[in-house]
Amino acid sequence: MALMNKQVVLVRRPNGIPKRTDFNIIETVVPSLKEGEVLLKTKYFSLDPYMRPRMNSTKGSYIECFKLGVPLDGAAVCVVEESRHQKLKVGDIVLSEAGWQTYAVSSDRVSEGMSLNLGSLTKLSDEVKISYYLGVLGMPGLTAHYGLLDIGRPQAGETVVVAAATGPVGSMVGQLAKLKGCRVVGIAGGTEKCDYAMREFGFDACVDYKRKSFAKDLKKACPNKIDIYFENVGGSVFKTVLRFLNNFARVPVCGLITYYNDGSTLQEPGFNLASGYAKLQALWRMFFHFDQTPMVMSSILGKRLKFQGFIISDHFDQYASFLKESIPLIQSGKIKVKEDIVKGIENSPDAFIRLLQGKNFGKLLVEI
Amino acid sequence: MALMNKQVVLVRRPNGIPKRTDFNIIETVVPSLKEGEVLLKTKYFSLDPYMRPRMNSTKGSYIECFKLGVPLDGAAVCVVEESRHQKLKVGDIVLSEAGWQTYAVSSDRVSEGMSLNLGSLTKLSDEVKISYYLGVLGMPGLTAHYGLLDIGRPQAGETVVVAAATGPVGSMVGQLAKLKGCRVVGIAGGTEKCDYAMREFGFDACVDYKRKSFAKDLKKACPNKIDIYFENVGGSVFKTVLRFLNNFARVPVCGLITYYNDGSTLQEPGFNLASGYAKLQALWRMFFHFDQTPMVMSSILGKRLKFQGFIISDHFDQYASFLKESIPLIQSGKIKVKEDIVKGIENSPDAFIRLLQGKNFGKLLVEI
Repeated sequence: MALMNKQVVLVRRPNGIPKRTDFNIIETVVPSLKEGEVLLKTKYFSLDPYMRPRMNSTKGSYIECFKLGVPLDGAAVCVVEESRHQKLKVGDIVLSEAGWQTYAVSSDRVSEGMSLNLGSLTKLSDEVKISYYLGVLGMPGLTAHYGLLDIGRPQAGETVVVAAATGPVGSMVGQLAKLKGCRVVGIAGGTEKCDYAMREFGFDACVDYKRKSFAKDLKKACPNKIDIYFENVGGSVFKTVLRFLNNFARVPVCGLITYYNDGSTLQEPGFNLASGYAKLQALWRMFFHFDQTPMVMSSILGKRLKFQGFIISDHFDQYASFLKESIPLIQSGKIKVKEDIVKGIENSPDAFIRLLQGKNFGKLLVEI
Repeated sequence: MALMNKQVVLVRRPNGIPKRTDFNIIETVVPSLKEGEVLLKTKYFSLDPYMRPRMNSTKGSYIECFKLGVPLDGAAVCVVEESRHQKLKVGDIVLSEAGWQTYAVSSDRVSEGMSLNLGSLTKLSDEVKISYYLGVLGMPGLTAHYGLLDIGRPQAGETVVVAAATGPVGSMVGQLAKLKGCRVVGIAGGTEKCDYAMREFGFDACVDYKRKSFAKDLKKACPNKIDIYFENVGGSVFKTVLRFLNNFARVPVCGLITYYNDGSTLQEPGFNLASGYAKLQALWRMFFHFDQTPMVMSSILGKRLKFQGFIISDHFDQYASFLKESIPLIQSGKIKVKEDIVKGIENSPDAFIRLLQGKNFGKLLVEI
């Protein structure tokens, strides 16, 4: 019997939060290998917020859009099941871009050492749990490391604020900032996550953005105001944080999950709003929201702020040194990890929807 | 007969563009000098856009607000008329903060060398026209130098865009960028200014923001898009430029003249709109303008932009080296200067109003 590959494909482009029916799970026959190819069996694949804008058809996203009807892309940790590839043997563990499927055939080159390159396979050592290469030791971890240290440049005694504090980026930002001697204040949804961030990740405080008292709570948690705001959410959290930034604060911008589900990033002249739903949302904003740009720009000027956007694939050259520094921190327990592992590819669409609703708790992975 | 000092005072805080009646010109008796004091006679004083937010009572500005009924602050080039100050003698030329008046009594310390310090007097050499110390060799020139070179970091071949191209900051940004081997595109109001920027300051192109075809003209003037946008205006010019920024573009933010006359920077929760007029403007914006923040933030992320605000008084330590570098460039004609000199203190309120309407042409000064 032929080996079957289960794959998650997008059947239509979502409006707002995706629905289960926007996805389909199909089965295809795994082809036999040609010379130079390798058969990968997925152990874990990653679900990340940045995948949502890739589901749009418009130019609203900063990365290539997903195609309909083919398996969704993304990082995956796989084991080599069969090999006609010169540099890989059966049993090797690799980080790949196989995405949302149970098998993948690849002829990608293998990155030397522990380096990371788009369109390459990275051989992994199993000195730590291999799923970590999708989170704290993968793109999310590197994102936290680069944004905090290279852009934010934290000094001991400064206050660092990060949202999605129990997520893979937020928890890493917080723990790295603690190691630098900063006061670290998280933002998360709900008491359970906030408590966890303080208890397990060592945040000095963690504020629940769902509470009416959020602005007051944040102010109280930051008695010396905010020197670095690691921006990964946008929206009303951003606007609240902006009020409490110190002069000369730095704002590395790595994500804007709040905007991913609506059309609000698409108002550039010449763009068409994606859908009727987005139009309604836009209309709502039109009547109830001022243009806040003058206020944002005036804050940048008056407080001498630095806002800097970055996309981690521009900085993969730092991956080997990042791993060298981070693996011992994890092994020694100085950096702790929280994973939210969903079993079975069938459950991945619902898990992704939960992620966009902020209902995941830790790095969201699908285990096959 | 006692020596009389003419002074311009603010009698009420302007709504929108100031009116002549918001100002008054008063005469006071110049007091006799005490030990350590010096009597300064104003030769030129400076009118600058940043003075407008200082006229508001709210926290909308990033600097201290003007008090009502006392002479307006600002940079002035003065000659020492009488001295009981240890370090100054009659005839010395100094850069001071005497502001909008014909005489000033000062006991400020004198900065050593050609350094610049708030609350100090700087002795000037007359190897160049002394009015230049209010423009190209003063705070505007230093603003251009710091913002372009330290934040913008232009590379040969890159495209630099600056608005208010014939003003003291814009013309200096453009000429410094040309010296760095950049393509320089100005933005100005009207054909006369645009032609002047190209003919006299050597801009490769200059686009009239008042034309309906502004966006198209700007696009055409920047065939390789924009690597540095030196932000000194805000508003719709900013939003148009944003569309044409390259990945990794830098945006030094030194001013936002478009917002200075309205309440749009004051929408931070807890602020009250300054006036009925501002409320009407805000209402107008509310119905006709989306909140563009998501679009701005998404551009920062997706294009990996760097926005950085700065206030030049934080960088006065660079003044001596800036002068050392810039004076020869002016003497050799590599940097050209355009001044708009108004004679007589009585004309200063109207001149200031013209400045905010963009009707000045070059660095606006009042000559006494």
